Amino acid sequence: MRVIIYGVGAVGGVLAAALQRSGTEVIGIARGRMLAAVQAKGIRLRSPEVDEVVPVTCVASPGEITFRADDAILLCMKTQDTRPALDALRMAGVTDQPIFCVQNGVANEAMALRLFPNVHGVTVMMPATYLNPGEAITYSAPKFGMFDIGRFPGGSDDADAALAEALNGATFAAYVKDDVMASKYGKLLMNLGNISGAAFGPKAADKPLRAALRAEAEAVLAASGIRVEDVSQTDPRRAVHMKTGPIPDAPGMSNSTLQSLQRGGSVETDYLNGEIAMLGRRHGVPTPLNDAMIALSVRMLREGIEPGSVSLDETMAALGIR
Amino acid sequence: MRVIIYGVGAVGGVLAAALQRSGTEVIGIARGRMLAAVQAKGIRLRSPEVDEVVPVTCVASPGEITFRADDAILLCMKTQDTRPALDALRMAGVTDQPIFCVQNGVANEAMALRLFPNVHGVTVMMPATYLNPGEAITYSAPKFGMFDIGRFPGGSDDADAALAEALNGATFAAYVKDDVMASKYGKLLMNLGNISGAAFGPKAADKPLRAALRAEAEAVLAASGIRVEDVSQTDPRRAVHMKTGPIPDAPGMSNSTLQSLQRGGSVETDYLNGEIAMLGRRHGVPTPLNDAMIALSVRMLREGIEPGSVSLDETMAALGIR
Repeated sequence: MRVIIYGVGAVGGVLAAALQRSGTEVIGIARGRMLAAVQAKGIRLRSPEVDEVVPVTCVASPGEITFRADDAILLCMKTQDTRPALDALRMAGVTDQPIFCVQNGVANEAMALRLFPNVHGVTVMMPATYLNPGEAITYSAPKFGMFDIGRFPGGSDDADAALAEALNGATFAAYVKDDVMASKYGKLLMNLGNISGAAFGPKAADKPLRAALRAEAEAVLAASGIRVEDVSQTDPRRAVHMKTGPIPDAPGMSNSTLQSLQRGGSVETDYLNGEIAMLGRRHGVPTPLNDAMIALSVRMLREGIEPGSVSLDETMAALGIR
Repeated sequence: MRVIIYGVGAVGGVLAAALQRSGTEVIGIARGRMLAAVQAKGIRLRSPEVDEVVPVTCVASPGEITFRADDAILLCMKTQDTRPALDALRMAGVTDQPIFCVQNGVANEAMALRLFPNVHGVTVMMPATYLNPGEAITYSAPKFGMFDIGRFPGGSDDADAALAEALNGATFAAYVKDDVMASKYGKLLMNLGNISGAAFGPKAADKPLRAALRAEAEAVLAASGIRVEDVSQTDPRRAVHMKTGPIPDAPGMSNSTLQSLQRGGSVETDYLNGEIAMLGRRHGVPTPLNDAMIALSVRMLREGIEPGSVSLDETMAALGIR
């Protein structure tokens, strides 16, 4: 199996370096300064226990790759970038190779299934950060991160088993699941506070807000008849594989929405809190708190508000959360 | 009610001119040569019974409009252009105004519901063509076209009634429906042959192919538990309102996929045949014929194949259709 990692950012960077380092053939697809840095120097992989530079083949677009039948394609971009990536893969000749959505949110799998027959979901449990071009950091040890893997919309197959085997050989903990989307909905619940970290700053005392967002979402998912598997801190696998720790000279853990806002890009809030809002609208369940988080992300983009500069106290008071 | 028509092409052009002509306030959003032509000369509205130039206010983007609470927003672009349009509307300040998806396919409503709470579906039954900038042609008389209108995912409300009233006063036949998506799935069945007209030419003897594509899709929709309302030529409303006829100096009727390919743009096949393929993949029903039409559209784009130049006989033989 050759692994194509489309989107070498935080998650894609750790995956590319760790898989290549363990002997799996990898091609990364990256852009801008990340592409230039990886091509020039490889990826510097950092964790509480590892600091190593790994040479990784990296290209700018799928059109530069001659795809093979044994390729597994890992989508590692944010959801707002998935559709053009799928188009580019198809125009480059990809047909029925397995497409793995190694992404937050639950919208990518259906988007991929529209263009490709062989689609898989992957739940990403990895505190990864992308700070400098050519660097990929995960704060997790002894494993770099954990993944649930399965076929979309359900079941599992040989491609899931093969990817899990490669990941387990590359210092990850990977599990094949017959209902991977239940695990991805569980991860979605954990990502509803991403916008909070981005708006109020990573150190804001936002626990009551996060809990309220989650409770509102759980009611919507229940009303929608969607099965949810808890993959939060109470998941016993985390205690074994994911003891997070500091890394010398690296800042603390962050989240992908904050990282996007800091780089001035679009945010994935529409596919996190927005998934809950959409389900609520479909099933007649009001979602005022998640709606407010979406409105906040839109206001930050429209008005160019600095990440971390919004008042948490005023926002919680306006929403009646204490 | 003011009507914002986002996407002044064939359907949007007829709607903008006919509504404005009947006294409804209209703002169109168009691009390129269409925008320049409408701003310079208005829209020339042509049907078997009408040939009239109508001045219509037209802008390049939602950002140029100061939105009002009484605006109804009609999306008239193709599905591949919907998401950026929704983003632009939100960044321009649209919040809970009704968004009407006046579009083929059934994917737009869910996309809109992710960003906006007040979403409506509209089934478009109008043989409209966009040939020259500033011109909008419909081959239908005595009405310019027919529309089913309702709230998404179901029901109907005052906004549906208000739009229907405006359309009925503008030489259209509009019907409010409590399950508009059933009507839109019926229209989807009629659009599965769009790629055929585009690939083999509008005069190809493709009736067996179209019938086979439709039968395959009907099996998928049945397996998916989706309700379908027949809005095809057997719909009795068509005989009353839509007697199609020739227009002097205009070519015969065409279809939107052919029109897209002729203008070198992307095609909407992924949201027509692709909707059937995706549903088939979700529910375990093979869709080899619709898959083949998608592969054909991809091949035409990848290899730059001239619209109308593909051999229908060879294609049908390869698919075992006679």
